[in-house]
Amino acid sequence: MLTKTPSFSDIKRAHQRISNYIIQTPVMTSKNIDEIAGCHIFFKCENFQKVGAFKMRGASNAIFSIRPEDRVNGFACHSSGNHGQAVALAAKLAGSKAYVVMPKNSSKVKIDAVKGYDAEVVLCEPNDKSRTQTCEDVVKRTGAILIHPFDDYNIIAGQASAAKELIEEIDELDAIISPVGGGGLAAGTALIAHHLDPNMEVYLGEPKEVDDTFQSFKAGKIVPNKSANTIADGLKTTVGEKNFEILKDHVKEVFTVTEKEIIDAMKLIWERMKIVIEPSCAVPFAAILKNKKVFKDKHVGVILTGGNVDLTKLPF
Amino acid sequence: MLTKTPSFSDIKRAHQRISNYIIQTPVMTSKNIDEIAGCHIFFKCENFQKVGAFKMRGASNAIFSIRPEDRVNGFACHSSGNHGQAVALAAKLAGSKAYVVMPKNSSKVKIDAVKGYDAEVVLCEPNDKSRTQTCEDVVKRTGAILIHPFDDYNIIAGQASAAKELIEEIDELDAIISPVGGGGLAAGTALIAHHLDPNMEVYLGEPKEVDDTFQSFKAGKIVPNKSANTIADGLKTTVGEKNFEILKDHVKEVFTVTEKEIIDAMKLIWERMKIVIEPSCAVPFAAILKNKKVFKDKHVGVILTGGNVDLTKLPF
Repeated sequence: MLTKTPSFSDIKRAHQRISNYIIQTPVMTSKNIDEIAGCHIFFKCENFQKVGAFKMRGASNAIFSIRPEDRVNGFACHSSGNHGQAVALAAKLAGSKAYVVMPKNSSKVKIDAVKGYDAEVVLCEPNDKSRTQTCEDVVKRTGAILIHPFDDYNIIAGQASAAKELIEEIDELDAIISPVGGGGLAAGTALIAHHLDPNMEVYLGEPKEVDDTFQSFKAGKIVPNKSANTIADGLKTTVGEKNFEILKDHVKEVFTVTEKEIIDAMKLIWERMKIVIEPSCAVPFAAILKNKKVFKDKHVGVILTGGNVDLTKLPF
Repeated sequence: MLTKTPSFSDIKRAHQRISNYIIQTPVMTSKNIDEIAGCHIFFKCENFQKVGAFKMRGASNAIFSIRPEDRVNGFACHSSGNHGQAVALAAKLAGSKAYVVMPKNSSKVKIDAVKGYDAEVVLCEPNDKSRTQTCEDVVKRTGAILIHPFDDYNIIAGQASAAKELIEEIDELDAIISPVGGGGLAAGTALIAHHLDPNMEVYLGEPKEVDDTFQSFKAGKIVPNKSANTIADGLKTTVGEKNFEILKDHVKEVFTVTEKEIIDAMKLIWERMKIVIEPSCAVPFAAILKNKKVFKDKHVGVILTGGNVDLTKLPF
């Protein structure tokens, strides 16, 4: 169990620990997309990851970091979806039970997927307070170990493995960009980029509607979100404390994008690359399209975080 | 220019001829899909091909088989979309002009894509007669060389390269299944399977609404389609003569599927594999799901023919 910012060795150990439980996802490129963006983009396709999202990396690392004899009461988490699926599957692979607290407005496809991994779903109100409270109740009732979706060094070390694979495969990256919600992936990406290549520029993309990280960078301290009004349902939460500390040190700039920019970018990737991605991971690509000068002619790594969308409720 | 059924050498030469103009597309698998289907499926992802469909293979072979000095008046074709895009791009790569006759009810995304490759689009009525007539008029007017979408040995040899790559990469296939419309891909797949492994079972999938090949197999001669009422817009045409002759010799069985079965199969692939495929290539997968006993525990190759769909008009 990690109790401080993961070192390079910590991330390497996490990657090794989870390697049997995750897919080393492919990196895709598209001439057509590069022409539109004016730079060379290398998409790390975590939409092809188990459970359809990078969250499998962090959850596996957190759960398999626990000794087998301490896994008997299972694991609990709260999640708008992907983290819930990841904890459900990782717990199952570890021979444990999972309890997943989900906001009751979560998409049906996400709730069904969590249940499909034999987890118990506990519905709550769609706000941070109810999520936290309901999850605490579950932990009290069952003795399960709480797996936080992002504000946890084991999660951060696990999520870092996505960018680690990308940077190790594509060795000429000038920059890397990740979306930021709670900051698990963002902090992991920033850390491993720093460890592997201190000169690599690290950027974040964030919906303007939930721009807590952008505002927190300006204020120098965490400024919570006032709304959760974005289509990018993986990015609604406010950045975590451990995450913000890491991001402050290693991120060059946070770019915000509008809802329309997110939807347009998402549609472009579906149309041109023929892959299904969820709105959250269109955010960094939308940020590139909005800031072409920053990325001009550079080699840019983009983490496509997941592909879990309700096909009956597409925004286009 | 091939004037008889392509030999193994003809197909190998075609593959070599086009290799610089096509993508060697990946083969994807999914544990989840295999569990549902009860067999091991290897999807050849021609949705990631240039122009988003396998048609690039046949069109490149047909066009690059013509000597440079004979390309000066350009190339003409009629197509509901993918063949048109393929001829447009292949002609452009060959330094020639393309004229593409398209039914006026073609999806906007397909018309725009053809225009994007600098081709001249000529709209016609949405029936076989108008397509043929309009195309003949274009040829008369311009002196362009007609590139038939399927009833042409050069096209068949080019399309065969998709299954060739699949069979050479996955060497333990028991069966292979392709959709059948005009029969360019189907005939190419059947031929190369026969050349590479005479014991491999070759199946076809066809929409029940346009079951001309199924009916033709029963009758022993070509029975034209009476309607074109299917969502699988690449499969509306009646099988070609050269194509039917090849299919008769090398295909074990033609399976038909309903419109609902096509849509359900398509949705399943989008949801579980996170890739965008068009309805036509959901047809073979729908046929597998409908005939599980035939495929039980077998290693089955499936050509995913393309990914060009109008995202604003999805059937789910």
